[in-house]
Amino acid sequence: MVRRHQAGFPPADATGMHMADQAGLRVQFLFDFGSPNAYLAAKIIPDVEKRTGVSVEYVPVLLGGIYKLTGNSSPADYLKGIRNKREYMEVETGRFIRRHGITSFRKNPFFPVNTLQLMRGAIAAQAEGLFWPYFHAVYRHMWEEPKKMDDPAVMMAALASSGIDAERIVAKAQDPAIKSRLMQLTEDAVARGAFGSPTFFVNDEMFFGKDQLRDVEEEILAQGRERGAKRAGAAS
Amino acid sequence: MVRRHQAGFPPADATGMHMADQAGLRVQFLFDFGSPNAYLAAKIIPDVEKRTGVSVEYVPVLLGGIYKLTGNSSPADYLKGIRNKREYMEVETGRFIRRHGITSFRKNPFFPVNTLQLMRGAIAAQAEGLFWPYFHAVYRHMWEEPKKMDDPAVMMAALASSGIDAERIVAKAQDPAIKSRLMQLTEDAVARGAFGSPTFFVNDEMFFGKDQLRDVEEEILAQGRERGAKRAGAAS
Repeated sequence: MVRRHQAGFPPADATGMHMADQAGLRVQFLFDFGSPNAYLAAKIIPDVEKRTGVSVEYVPVLLGGIYKLTGNSSPADYLKGIRNKREYMEVETGRFIRRHGITSFRKNPFFPVNTLQLMRGAIAAQAEGLFWPYFHAVYRHMWEEPKKMDDPAVMMAALASSGIDAERIVAKAQDPAIKSRLMQLTEDAVARGAFGSPTFFVNDEMFFGKDQLRDVEEEILAQGRERGAKRAGAAS
Repeated sequence: MVRRHQAGFPPADATGMHMADQAGLRVQFLFDFGSPNAYLAAKIIPDVEKRTGVSVEYVPVLLGGIYKLTGNSSPADYLKGIRNKREYMEVETGRFIRRHGITSFRKNPFFPVNTLQLMRGAIAAQAEGLFWPYFHAVYRHMWEEPKKMDDPAVMMAALASSGIDAERIVAKAQDPAIKSRLMQLTEDAVARGAFGSPTFFVNDEMFFGKDQLRDVEEEILAQGRERGAKRAGAAS
């Protein structure tokens, strides 16, 4: 199932949510808009989908919630005061950007941005069938033309400038069901093994970090082969 | 330059030290016997050498010294109390072992083992032209038939059982020049950007972690092509 792609991001279907495909393969990308590494990984997902034929499910989570539940913290925090390690992370990120020819990425000078409203907005946008326009718009204003997106006025103006009905999404985001859904997805992620961002699942096999997208792809192909072999066996 | 290989480890030349090859490419593996991830990486290096034609230089460093100089610590320490993250490291290690078909690895129940004497011994073994037998023997008794190798009596007996002239190496390891060489290599590593183990350099490009051996290999091939193109240009 190869689909049309746009500007390095996935195609604009309604929700970003998919169930397992016909082969029984469920591939999930757990993201928080505040994570630059999740942004960079997201740029590559359409290529992985194209090469493997899978459709990746986008799962909003609250990274701050994951950190609180696991006792983990952001690299910016836990690498503070450690010589060379943070500099090396920058080198790795530069290599990833060059390898994949990513030209859109800009550091956000307001990092870290509190993403609670943005992530509730992602769930709301899924519920309203507006996920992809919202997803593209938020990433644009976070990591391409970076703004202080935890300032409500800045956020509303930015979304409006991208043609998003921000009032509608913000209103929906106040729905208790939306709020609790974000918490539930975050708790589920930790229960399944997550501790940071970006996190991928290929069925129950977890992968952490943008550099493991190659492993994600290998796992998709391996699990696909395995299931294919089982089906062939069952049919014979 | 493809060379004979033995049991997943590099061939038995005298020292493990090489200068840049004809193409001007210097590939270095900085290791401490105490690091299981360095052991696992070392098992794969011969394959990388075979595929790329380079000869990797083995550089003994003291991981404890690197941690002291950088303020870094071992994953066993810095992941303490963080949910999921350490478990994931185990998953990753299991994947690496399966991917590369490594059957020899056993966890060392005495981990962490103080490796000061063993690493001085590595420098001494290089000086005495006994590097490879010593290297294979120490790794065997650290990560294949694991022992408490920071107990001097255990170490001497283990090395002797592998046919190593342990007395000669231990005596040489007391030489102040050997001791200061290990410190110098460790300080140089940190000055060049190292913070943990295993660390690789392809000329001055640093790579950290066994999972980046793929990137090391790509970098070797890329730098080799670049230099080849320059030589072709200079000759024309």
